[in-house]
Amino acid sequence: MSFAVEERGNQNSLNYRLFFKNAEGKYISPFHDIPIFADESQNIFHMVVEVPRWTNAKMEIATKDLLNPIKQDVKKDKVRYVANVFPHKGYIWNYGAIPQTWEDPAHKDTDTGCCGDNDPIDVCEIGCKVCSSGDVIKVKVLGILAMIDEDETDWKVIAINVEDPEAKHLNTIADVRRLKPGLLDATVSWFRKYKLPDGKPENRFAFNDEFKDKDFAIEVINNTHNSWKDLISQQAGAGGLNCKNTCVSSADSPNRCTAEDAEAAVSQTCPCGKEEPIPSSVDEWFYV
Amino acid sequence: MSFAVEERGNQNSLNYRLFFKNAEGKYISPFHDIPIFADESQNIFHMVVEVPRWTNAKMEIATKDLLNPIKQDVKKDKVRYVANVFPHKGYIWNYGAIPQTWEDPAHKDTDTGCCGDNDPIDVCEIGCKVCSSGDVIKVKVLGILAMIDEDETDWKVIAINVEDPEAKHLNTIADVRRLKPGLLDATVSWFRKYKLPDGKPENRFAFNDEFKDKDFAIEVINNTHNSWKDLISQQAGAGGLNCKNTCVSSADSPNRCTAEDAEAAVSQTCPCGKEEPIPSSVDEWFYV
Repeated sequence: MSFAVEERGNQNSLNYRLFFKNAEGKYISPFHDIPIFADESQNIFHMVVEVPRWTNAKMEIATKDLLNPIKQDVKKDKVRYVANVFPHKGYIWNYGAIPQTWEDPAHKDTDTGCCGDNDPIDVCEIGCKVCSSGDVIKVKVLGILAMIDEDETDWKVIAINVEDPEAKHLNTIADVRRLKPGLLDATVSWFRKYKLPDGKPENRFAFNDEFKDKDFAIEVINNTHNSWKDLISQQAGAGGLNCKNTCVSSADSPNRCTAEDAEAAVSQTCPCGKEEPIPSSVDEWFYV
Repeated sequence: MSFAVEERGNQNSLNYRLFFKNAEGKYISPFHDIPIFADESQNIFHMVVEVPRWTNAKMEIATKDLLNPIKQDVKKDKVRYVANVFPHKGYIWNYGAIPQTWEDPAHKDTDTGCCGDNDPIDVCEIGCKVCSSGDVIKVKVLGILAMIDEDETDWKVIAINVEDPEAKHLNTIADVRRLKPGLLDATVSWFRKYKLPDGKPENRFAFNDEFKDKDFAIEVINNTHNSWKDLISQQAGAGGLNCKNTCVSSADSPNRCTAEDAEAAVSQTCPCGKEEPIPSSVDEWFYV
């Protein structure tokens, strides 16, 4: 199964969009139409890469836009960049989401005591390759961190690209601790502090800041997949999310995205143009 | 006083060169012709930026080539990239050299007990702006680290761009420790380990791994300036260094670089072309 992205607008600007197509060239939603599982055994998951390692632009699946393209988050009418918190440069993993999952804001998690953040579940991919925004890769799940961001549950799955040369040696959180010493502590520290330069509070974590292992992680992911199923079948309130899709719903469903819908969604955006420069203020290093 | 660079060849390839020109458009050597001091009080120094922060290409002043352009170091017939040692991405400062200085390989340093490394003195510039290779900036010296690399003395000056918004608050090593917590420890750790991924040993440091302060640093720099004066007046052996220059020596000196010399040096290089991609292996993170 392969996917491609169609670039629209100017990178690093408000009009930039990455639309997804499947192998037949049909527009799809990366939120709804890319299968959660990448193999029949259901042990390998798809991941949609939003933010490549070492970059700062907060690229994300636009959950409320038709066809859910990737676009850059906006803050005070400007495209948003995540600050560099010393000693880190940008994101320290390839960061993205597992498709066909949803952290339901009406569902209080028993472990964190907080409701979901209304997004697909987040993934930190720790392989050696720097991916591109819009890449759809296959990942092996290794563990999970229970982040709490302003009283919302925001799970962070730790996973590795199955094509990574070291993937076969990495199967548990203990393997990560042994083979990539310092990375898990850096991950907690990164998420704790990354909004401090923007004047926001530190994030918290359940389970005494500790990672849960692979089996727990897969259970959480499956729960968010069930929440997504309720969402897409309209058994859960959509709360502003755009659930139109081209591969999941039956042809007569109100969630069906027709070829006309898709053309309209793409044609409303700007043609692909030259990228804008990243402001030099993004280079600053914050010591917090 | 302003300087410009003329790009030749293809970036990230063996043929890439950055030649320097002064304000009159005359070719100069960044090693010999850019004045060490950037102000009359001799408190502010020029720095030639070789490696921008967060990059990996080992760009350096070609001390043995005519006009001493910046080029990428070569290892086993390939352009050299410095490995990323976790948690760092590339160089963690703008890295470069102070012109008109020389660490004499025939001179044994009384503090380190080791001779010089035959290069101009190195600088780590800690300001917030990411510079470009070939930039000539004005820096305030804050301190110095006495690195010993395979029994050669290789001083690392800590300095800040005088145009940095925080420059007025940074005057001593203690100021760096207070305002940029963790940066000095990261600097020692970075230099200690950066060649380990290439199979080389750890670097050592004199003074129990501690930084010396501004006054000591300036004395070391002035000593290397005196060594350079001996070099350029041929009172010290040049050991393969190219000492041709356009602004220092008198017109009838053997070290004088004529307009014909300069034209020849530049014309031997390839015209400016498209940059080569950086190999994805450079993205790897090493845990050492």
